[in-house]
Amino acid sequence: MADTPNRTTYTVESLLAVTVQVFNARGYDGTSMEDLSRAAGISKSSIYHHVRGKEELLRLAVGRALDGLFGTLDEPAATSGRPVDRLEHVVRRTTEVLLTELPYVTLLLRVRGNTGTEQWALERRRDFDHRVAELVREAVAAGELRAQVEPRLATRLLFGMINSIVEWYRPGSPQADGVAEAVVRLAFDGLRA
Amino acid sequence: MADTPNRTTYTVESLLAVTVQVFNARGYDGTSMEDLSRAAGISKSSIYHHVRGKEELLRLAVGRALDGLFGTLDEPAATSGRPVDRLEHVVRRTTEVLLTELPYVTLLLRVRGNTGTEQWALERRRDFDHRVAELVREAVAAGELRAQVEPRLATRLLFGMINSIVEWYRPGSPQADGVAEAVVRLAFDGLRA
Repeated sequence: MADTPNRTTYTVESLLAVTVQVFNARGYDGTSMEDLSRAAGISKSSIYHHVRGKEELLRLAVGRALDGLFGTLDEPAATSGRPVDRLEHVVRRTTEVLLTELPYVTLLLRVRGNTGTEQWALERRRDFDHRVAELVREAVAAGELRAQVEPRLATRLLFGMINSIVEWYRPGSPQADGVAEAVVRLAFDGLRA
Repeated sequence: MADTPNRTTYTVESLLAVTVQVFNARGYDGTSMEDLSRAAGISKSSIYHHVRGKEELLRLAVGRALDGLFGTLDEPAATSGRPVDRLEHVVRRTTEVLLTELPYVTLLLRVRGNTGTEQWALERRRDFDHRVAELVREAVAAGELRAQVEPRLATRLLFGMINSIVEWYRPGSPQADGVAEAVVRLAFDGLRA
């Protein structure tokens, strides 16, 4: 407990790190400001010093995941080159963002859309999926993917595989190394020798 | 509503079909025998005529999913031939079982292990995963999969992709055709042309 930041050292970022753990453990709907205050070890008024309330914390937390995911689409390797290589880059980097921002992406994937912030997060997730499906389409059109690949279905299966990693991945686990590489190789080259 | 079976025509199977919908909608913990009685349109005592209670209904429902999944491992194409072909058969058939037994597999995937029946279901899921991971291992040993494939990780990614289908697949959807084939092609040959 010696490392728990006290009221004066709390920042929005350290508050978010605690918040996202509580949201993932209890669910957003099941978390009260009281729960957050207890978990952070600071008073509710200290929390309100940083944010307007629970929904703003949710927006900041899923926003962090979304910024990471969308950021991959603007990287040079995602914006120039052959569509299939841009797609491969996005698949690899999306997996890496999931691994490095694990609790934030986990929270994003659990959002179901009951509040305005949740609706906004779902819409941005759909936007992201559409951007990737568009890349798949370009790669198919360029003859770089197998002709039978249906872009929307392929995108769903790709993200199904990537997103499922939050179910079992724990930082530092023996399989931590090479997860992104394994995803890319399976998705683009398949398992078969 | 004309097709709703009445008390005299109810069988365990038709009761299960209603039960699994209610469990998936409300969660197993959140479902009471009262809820099931209302959804089925029969009295609680009529339900108790068929089963001992809620947990037996859960066991029958997830058992149906598990029987379907394990059944694929005993099919001739899964028990003889090259390991890679046996694995491909199991991946295809597992996906087909998920599609045809969608509500039952959905329920199985949501089991978290609070009761004895849930513990049993989780254990059988792990057994199934181990059986498939063993097939992956045999195929790697036979040089039929890429040498870098790590069996446990590959199995997790494979089932991550397959199991994610329950999140979006609806019977009769435009993408319904060819889902199992798309999974097999992506997993074994990859997307790249």
